[in-house]
Amino acid sequence: MLVSFQPFIFVAMSNELYIYNSLTREKQLFNPLNPPFVGMYVCGPTVYNEVHLGNLRTFISFDLIYRWLTVLGYKVRYVRNITDVGHLENDADEGEDKISQRARLEQLEPMEIVQKYTNRFHEVLNVFRCIPPSIEPTATGHLIEQIDLIRIILSKGFAYEVNGSVYFDVKKYAEYYNYGVLSGRNIEELLSGTRDLDGQEEKRNPLDFALWKKAGATHIMRWPSPWGEGFPGWHLECSAMSTKYLGTTFDIHGGGMDLKFPHHECEIAQHCAAHENAPVNYWIHGNMLTLNGKKMSKSDGNFVLPFDLTNGTPPLVDKPYSPLSVRFFMLQAHYGSTLDLSMEALSASDKAFRRLQQAIKDVATISPGATASDFDAQEWANNCKSAMNDDFNSPILIAHLFDAVKIVNACKDKKRSLDALQLTILKDNLNLYFYQVLGLDNPESASSQTELLDGVMNLILDLRKAAREQKDWNTSDKIRNTLQSLDIVIKDGKDGSTWQINN
Amino acid sequence: MLVSFQPFIFVAMSNELYIYNSLTREKQLFNPLNPPFVGMYVCGPTVYNEVHLGNLRTFISFDLIYRWLTVLGYKVRYVRNITDVGHLENDADEGEDKISQRARLEQLEPMEIVQKYTNRFHEVLNVFRCIPPSIEPTATGHLIEQIDLIRIILSKGFAYEVNGSVYFDVKKYAEYYNYGVLSGRNIEELLSGTRDLDGQEEKRNPLDFALWKKAGATHIMRWPSPWGEGFPGWHLECSAMSTKYLGTTFDIHGGGMDLKFPHHECEIAQHCAAHENAPVNYWIHGNMLTLNGKKMSKSDGNFVLPFDLTNGTPPLVDKPYSPLSVRFFMLQAHYGSTLDLSMEALSASDKAFRRLQQAIKDVATISPGATASDFDAQEWANNCKSAMNDDFNSPILIAHLFDAVKIVNACKDKKRSLDALQLTILKDNLNLYFYQVLGLDNPESASSQTELLDGVMNLILDLRKAAREQKDWNTSDKIRNTLQSLDIVIKDGKDGSTWQINN
Repeated sequence: MLVSFQPFIFVAMSNELYIYNSLTREKQLFNPLNPPFVGMYVCGPTVYNEVHLGNLRTFISFDLIYRWLTVLGYKVRYVRNITDVGHLENDADEGEDKISQRARLEQLEPMEIVQKYTNRFHEVLNVFRCIPPSIEPTATGHLIEQIDLIRIILSKGFAYEVNGSVYFDVKKYAEYYNYGVLSGRNIEELLSGTRDLDGQEEKRNPLDFALWKKAGATHIMRWPSPWGEGFPGWHLECSAMSTKYLGTTFDIHGGGMDLKFPHHECEIAQHCAAHENAPVNYWIHGNMLTLNGKKMSKSDGNFVLPFDLTNGTPPLVDKPYSPLSVRFFMLQAHYGSTLDLSMEALSASDKAFRRLQQAIKDVATISPGATASDFDAQEWANNCKSAMNDDFNSPILIAHLFDAVKIVNACKDKKRSLDALQLTILKDNLNLYFYQVLGLDNPESASSQTELLDGVMNLILDLRKAAREQKDWNTSDKIRNTLQSLDIVIKDGKDGSTWQINN
Repeated sequence: MLVSFQPFIFVAMSNELYIYNSLTREKQLFNPLNPPFVGMYVCGPTVYNEVHLGNLRTFISFDLIYRWLTVLGYKVRYVRNITDVGHLENDADEGEDKISQRARLEQLEPMEIVQKYTNRFHEVLNVFRCIPPSIEPTATGHLIEQIDLIRIILSKGFAYEVNGSVYFDVKKYAEYYNYGVLSGRNIEELLSGTRDLDGQEEKRNPLDFALWKKAGATHIMRWPSPWGEGFPGWHLECSAMSTKYLGTTFDIHGGGMDLKFPHHECEIAQHCAAHENAPVNYWIHGNMLTLNGKKMSKSDGNFVLPFDLTNGTPPLVDKPYSPLSVRFFMLQAHYGSTLDLSMEALSASDKAFRRLQQAIKDVATISPGATASDFDAQEWANNCKSAMNDDFNSPILIAHLFDAVKIVNACKDKKRSLDALQLTILKDNLNLYFYQVLGLDNPESASSQTELLDGVMNLILDLRKAAREQKDWNTSDKIRNTLQSLDIVIKDGKDGSTWQINN
């Protein structure tokens, strides 16, 4: 499935990967703990509704990162969790569990909600070509590990139990560690910015967060624990599961920018309190996606889901876009920059994608010339690699790929020629970056079938046009009838013929 | 996605579903505990290797059962587990854990093995059109529930602890309950048939089975418990998870025939010991699949995997078969009968499937005549329903569908006509049984794209043949070149031309 690739050409440069580390706020040379192994943990979805487009962008960003690490030769253990309990409606440990609430609304048992949206999440990520992680652990699948972690934090004195719930003591923690190290927030400011406790509150301090919540009488999702029946706090699972599968210090932790505070800050606090060391060497945060210049919001109607783009759902989406084209659009921005989605931008990106895709096809048909042209293929390949090694800079990579598109088109038009070595470097690297790194196609997948069907149908429309011009009605009738039996309908318009499947 | 369907025609008959109950060894009227709700638990795979064809048959059988219950109007909570720990190499609680062993062989962490083969399992079931279950719980995700269940069994005196392991006491159990009630085995015969304990053995009795196994020093998959660090016995998870999601008595428990003993027998024993009642009202067992008249066996080379059939992998598979065609082949046998797979049988079934598929397309194009024919559509529809209500008898249903194919073909040839009501009943029921009950297509899926591509490519090969016969080299060259740019290669042979995608 993976494109064949000549390592000797590729590894001419050294593997100096630089990553922007949110923790140190600078680009740093990537030094994994145990090369060639790399441990990477990415915060996955809370499976209580459809994955939204901003989340999809984050998962595509980490898919790119995972692919690039793999291409560099690292053996990556990529862990991405499924949150299926404990994520409450708001960050102050209040309100209903998101999954329980949805279960009530859909009149299903909570684990049916979990199953439904986990399946849906996998479907979306598969369509948009994200490689599945090595391990996809669930919060409910790691209750014992979470209870153990709470026990350790309690034993070290950084948590307290009240009425069957256990809270993390942020103020106490801040006496020993730097709470705010990741988000840059200042504990004094945070404390002064929070509202006063109203006396009903179990927490000693508004910044404290739940490690374990007592389950009320009607709460369905509940497990026995040393503190009575309850359920784990949201931040806890990631600490317990990342440690279980990646160790007490690992290389990379990723997630969306919105998780930096409080989620990731709390993860660091839990981990330091329990293990007395920082959990992660490189924190990577994907940036946000806006729609038409504004924050996406369901209540304002400024909101589209991933499949709205591929279905062309009005009024916000003007026509169907292929999942590959949407993926390409997202990769045209750096993962660390905000990206605004508009139909103008998507449409322009779609055209660019098709040009690139065509060049990938065309390069296969070019034959080497006898003489070398002035194109420095090795330098170009090095530039591609440098772009990716500079904090996974896919927009710069794509710009380099378009330099190659110009060369391919010039060769195709016989205005230029490449010798055998130049051509091999060009071809291998174009294929490598297009398929393997950017993940822009997979020959076995459904969408590739769609594109084949597209290509074959265009041929048939051409043959039909020729037959009609020659008044060969037998052939044109045969075409129309056969397509009809396949539920394919041809529509003849001013600008030529189109076809569609009649479902 | 589901085919529209007129309930008033369909519900003319009462919903008297009969199920062959392995427990009572007779067909019984199905009376669910809490209609319209039905609880159904099916034993899922141990995710340590590729799902084999016999398992696939079992899952397709229960998919049929699930679909039919849904069509009858039941709201089914369908639970199918993933065994990701505790399944040892042999049934005597000896040997290595299958997943740990595989992890060692593939040099991966056990949960990476679990993830890999869970993903693969989902892929296979999706390709063969099995609807995902409502809940898909994992054994490692239910350690607390399993430990709780062991506690209860210990407290009732039906288990004992030795050296950090806990075993179920079958002899003691048999003094109060009927061990062998499901499998029909006799405890005295079982006892006399087992080898003597060699003194090294922790069990009091060879029939005793592990509820909890102590983890050796190097065992990776381990959890803390009241008996020390260890892992659950294989039979335990199904008891714990079925009770959690379906209650202490539920309607249907299914699985392959090979699971009847000891797995299901042990499940009943665990459950009765803990809850003092039988867990399940209807036990359903799917029968085995043989290959070329013999048991499938990897070591004998008499073995094919599901995708071998769709890929046409030599030497045992003669050509690629569509997943729908394989599914149809399996549904042509009753789930309770053994089924032998041979290329002759599969090929014949494939032809039959295509005839049925064509009729489903053709029926849409038939217009009602002014007069009714002598076809009793309502009786035919009742017969279809009766077949499925008679223990999900899909082969009889399919025979009735072929009666309808004859009618459709006669109408198409204008040798017969149906009035509007006859035609509506015929069309709606053909669609209902083909799409919704037998699950033989899904217009949105990849394989449907494959079939479209197939149909369109056949048209192109026809056009090319005609062009070549007329010495129209322009057209035949255009076809060849365009296909080449799409990586489609035509091969001309003695029996005509074929095509393939050149990956």
